[in-house]
Order: sequence, then C-alpha cells, then structure tokens
Amino acid sequence: MKAVYFNGAKTIFDKNYLEPKSDEALVRVKLAGICGTDLEILQGYMKYHGILGHEFVGIVEKSRNPVLIGKRVVGEINAGCDKCNFCEKGISRHCPNRTVLGILKRDGAFAEFLSLPEKNLHVIPDSITDEQAVFVEPLAAAFEIKEQINLKSHWSVAVVGDGKLAQLIVQVLKLSCPDITCFGRHKNKLQNLTSDGIKIKIGIEPSNKQSFDLVIEATGNNSGFLDAIKLAKPRGTVVLKSTIASRENLDLTQVIVNEITLVGSRCGLFKPAIDALSTGIVSVDSMIDSTFPLEEFSKAIEYAKKPDALKVFLKP
Amino acid sequence: MKAVYFNGAKTIFDKNYLEPKSDEALVRVKLAGICGTDLEILQGYMKYHGILGHEFVGIVEKSRNPVLIGKRVVGEINAGCDKCNFCEKGISRHCPNRTVLGILKRDGAFAEFLSLPEKNLHVIPDSITDEQAVFVEPLAAAFEIKEQINLKSHWSVAVVGDGKLAQLIVQVLKLSCPDITCFGRHKNKLQNLTSDGIKIKIGIEPSNKQSFDLVIEATGNNSGFLDAIKLAKPRGTVVLKSTIASRENLDLTQVIVNEITLVGSRCGLFKPAIDALSTGIVSVDSMIDSTFPLEEFSKAIEYAKKPDALKVFLKP
Repeated sequence: MKAVYFNGAKTIFDKNYLEPKSDEALVRVKLAGICGTDLEILQGYMKYHGILGHEFVGIVEKSRNPVLIGKRVVGEINAGCDKCNFCEKGISRHCPNRTVLGILKRDGAFAEFLSLPEKNLHVIPDSITDEQAVFVEPLAAAFEIKEQINLKSHWSVAVVGDGKLAQLIVQVLKLSCPDITCFGRHKNKLQNLTSDGIKIKIGIEPSNKQSFDLVIEATGNNSGFLDAIKLAKPRGTVVLKSTIASRENLDLTQVIVNEITLVGSRCGLFKPAIDALSTGIVSVDSMIDSTFPLEEFSKAIEYAKKPDALKVFLKP
Repeated sequence: MKAVYFNGAKTIFDKNYLEPKSDEALVRVKLAGICGTDLEILQGYMKYHGILGHEFVGIVEKSRNPVLIGKRVVGEINAGCDKCNFCEKGISRHCPNRTVLGILKRDGAFAEFLSLPEKNLHVIPDSITDEQAVFVEPLAAAFEIKEQINLKSHWSVAVVGDGKLAQLIVQVLKLSCPDITCFGRHKNKLQNLTSDGIKIKIGIEPSNKQSFDLVIEATGNNSGFLDAIKLAKPRGTVVLKSTIASRENLDLTQVIVNEITLVGSRCGLFKPAIDALSTGIVSVDSMIDSTFPLEEFSKAIEYAKKPDALKVFLKP
C-alpha cells in the first residue's frame, strides 16, 4: 500500500509498504490531517519511527464485528493493554503499555490502510463531512480540559496561541465560560474568533498580567509557557497543551511564589467531540485549509509549517 | 542595632544599623533561623537586598496594642496592602503589593529588632521553646500543602528531599496519609524518619517510577523536579516547594503526556503550625542543630550550607 513513514531522519513515500496484518479492524483511510504534533515528531518528539498521522476518517474494510464493515469511522488513537489499572478504569490513554496511532509503536494514518482495535472506532453520522470528521481527534483533546478542570462560568479565561488547537479550545471553553481572551501572533487567525464574542490580543499588555483565573497554553512553542504563567492570577490554573520536542530554561519560580496550579493535558474522549460537531455547537469549517494527495506529502508538510496555515489534509 | 544585611554581592555585619521606625509592632529578636531560602537569596533569588532572615521568635517591645507588649511572638512574614482582593479574602500572602520579611522589600530577622504589623504576630505558648518556635514559619509552609490539596488517606505519597522542610512535610502529611516514602541522598537525615513508619530510599529504583498518587518536591535543588515527575502516576499530583535561584532545561513533556498536575506551594498560615507544636503531633527536636551569635553569621551560614546540617540558629 502507499504510505508515508518517518525513519528518524526524514519522511519517505513508499508505494509498497506492507498492509497492516492483525486481528484488529482494518480501515481504508479516506482523509488524514496534519497536526502540530506530526511536525514535532519530525523534530524528534517521542523518538517515533513509522507511518505518521493520527487524525483520520476512513471506511472499515475488515472487522470481527460485521456491523462495522463498510461504516465511516474515526478512531481513538491510544490502544491499551486491557489488563492494567488504567485500562480497567477506562483510561487506556494512560496505559503504561499503550501504543498510540502514528506517535508510539503503532503505524499511523498517512497510508491507504491502518488498523485499530474495534473498541477504538466511532461511526460518524452523515451530517459530518470527511473534513469535519478529521477534527474529531484534536477537538477531543480540547474537550479533555472540561474533563480535568471544574470550569466556573464567572472565570476570566485566557487562551495563549492562535493555531488550530487554540481555536478549538476557545470554542469548547466558550460553552462554559463567556469571558475569554485569546492571545496570539497572527491577526488573520484571530479574526475568526471576534464574531463569537472572544476578545483578541496581539501580545500581552501590562494590565493583562496576573489577571486570569484560567490560562490555556496552546501555542505549540516554547515561549507560550512563560506567557501563560505571566497571565495567571496568583492561585490560578494554567493548562499545558503544547507537546513539543524541546523546552529550555523554564523558570518555575513564579509558579511557586504565586502558587499556580499547572495541569498537563493531552488526548480526550471522542464522544463529546462527535456530538459537538453533529449538533453544530462547535464549528471547524473556518479552519479547513488545503488537501494534498498522499504522494505530495512533502509539499503538504511544508505548507502546514507556514505560520498562517490552518488544517492541511492528505488524501491517500 | 546589630544587623546582618545582604547588599546584592555579600553579607555584611553592621553594629550601627538604624532601628526600624514605623507604626508597626517593634519586636526584639530572641532567636532567628537560617532557611534554605536565605542561602538562595545569597545566590540571587528574589534579587533581595536588606536584612536577611524570616524565621524568628522575639519579644514585643512596642505596640499600639498594649496586650502584646512583653509577649513572646512569632510573625507571619507576608504583609499585605489591606486594600486588594487578596487581602480582603484573607490571603495577604498573595497581595500584589505585599512586602515579605527578609525576602521582599522588608528588613528581616537577622538583627536585634524587626517590625511587623500587629495582625501578623502570634503569641507563643510557654510549652514551646524558642528553638521550636523558630520552626513555626517552615512548619506553616508544610501545612500549606493540606490547605491546597484534598489529601486522601489511601494515597501513596512520595516526598523528594531529606532536608528540614522535607522532614516537616513528611510529619504533616503523615497526619492524613499513612503510606509515605521519602527519597533522599543522606542516610543520616533519613534515619530520623524510620521510627515514624516512613519508608526511606536513597535514589529512585525502576519500580518506584510512576507509582505515587502525590509527590512533594522539597529538595531545594534543580534535580528534584525531574525526580518528582518520574515518581508521579499518570494523572497524579506533584507539589513544588523548592524556591531556588535558577532552573535549567526543565522538560515538561512527561507532565503533559501523563497529565500530571503541578501545584506551586509557598507560605502557609501559622495557627495550624503552632497548634501542632504545642500538642506535640509534630516534633522538630531532632532537627535542632547549632546556635551562633549574630556576630558569627559568616560561620553560621557556612555551617548551614553543609549537606548534613539541620536547623542553624542566630542569636542577636
């Protein structure tokens, strides 16, 4: 099959990559998305080697569950061992023996086929387009914040970052907290948000410092951390969303002096994300950018790296 | 009066330092303690210049409150503005305009006299000795963890560090969580703890990794952070207690991947600490080391820097 894999040094297109052989469901990938984490993997994050990609929508071709065959699905990316304490509690995304699609010991979605356990798959209703369905995975990561933090409607909230994940987070938090300010660098990206009543800022002003109850760091780069700490009130909460390959010289003094709570946040459950897309309470249409054939993955990755790029898709 | 002050480059003994002149209470210092934070200030922490020292017991010489005069007292070290939201809520230790005894814009306790607002002072019962009373401030910082975290008795708890603060924290957490392991470097310091049923470890073994619900970082140095992150279970909590002058190359990837909650923790309220010392549920006697006259501050500081030193006192 056609696949794009990363060998630790560079990405390679292989038209004769071995198809997945396992007792899991076999999914023909219809469309895959390029995520900031993929770009970080190319910089060394997670030391991953294999087929890239973890955002996808596809059609089930083979499965031990006949009901699934032919269905259009998305898939939770963490596959647990089914035996440990975390798997027993339904949190297989923290299973110490887990594999993660396109990120950890499991070939990903930049290919004609992928395999996943049946229980990871979610059938997508017809009202959701393929492009929208690819957003389920990052949108679930945004909903994870609601699972971790008991959001209060009177909180003043700051989101640091203006990329795709930051914009999804803004939309999710808006459902609970009306007072949101988004701090970014790119006016064109932030413009989308103003119609939703979100305050937008290019850069932090002195009056913004220590004035937010909750701050979400979703810049995908190293500078976001210190900005987030500056914005949080003493005893406030900062949620960390950027999984990046390197961090340097992070000073935690202000975290301790101001007794800030930092919460690491990663993948979330898919159900709330699918529901939000199908009911339309979250819209991703303004974030859809361009689609490239899988063969043009190099061009697609270069395009996705541009500061003003939104969601870029690969079509096998 | 006699005083030891730090000019940004070195500590200086001055026998003619101006006595504090304010409408606050005037306290004659009986005994002061040298804390790890004092040693960090000498390395540049907080960029503080002035009289050092924030742990003390003394006698009130002047006060607008006649009841206080002649009383033996300890003092909360944060003095707020009495006007801001934090002061109104009784959390003046987060007042943005606060001064902090011997740490921020307020001369400290390594002197014959200090001044503090009356409401910062707590009368010490006769059952508590001067040496014990000096521990009220760091013991309050240990009790702060109980105010921030809803401790569960079934949790497995790790304390990283074996210094004075770590030992106080172990004693405080023991009141709520029986299963505590203390990870240190100095067998002689850890030995104290075994009689209380605390498990002690020199260094982290592979089986310790990701196995604690709650981890307290109280090493006072840079390496403690990564050790604490290694020990925490996914979705566990790490409390950060070390206020140190420099941090380097902290990698937060595991915090995000394992969705760890980091909680910065600083000063606490004095009342629970005084109660714990007077009822004897916490004992500090094994941590009392040596007392030096104020004139011998240089010798005292060098002594306090030794890896196996416990609490070192200065007597004006």
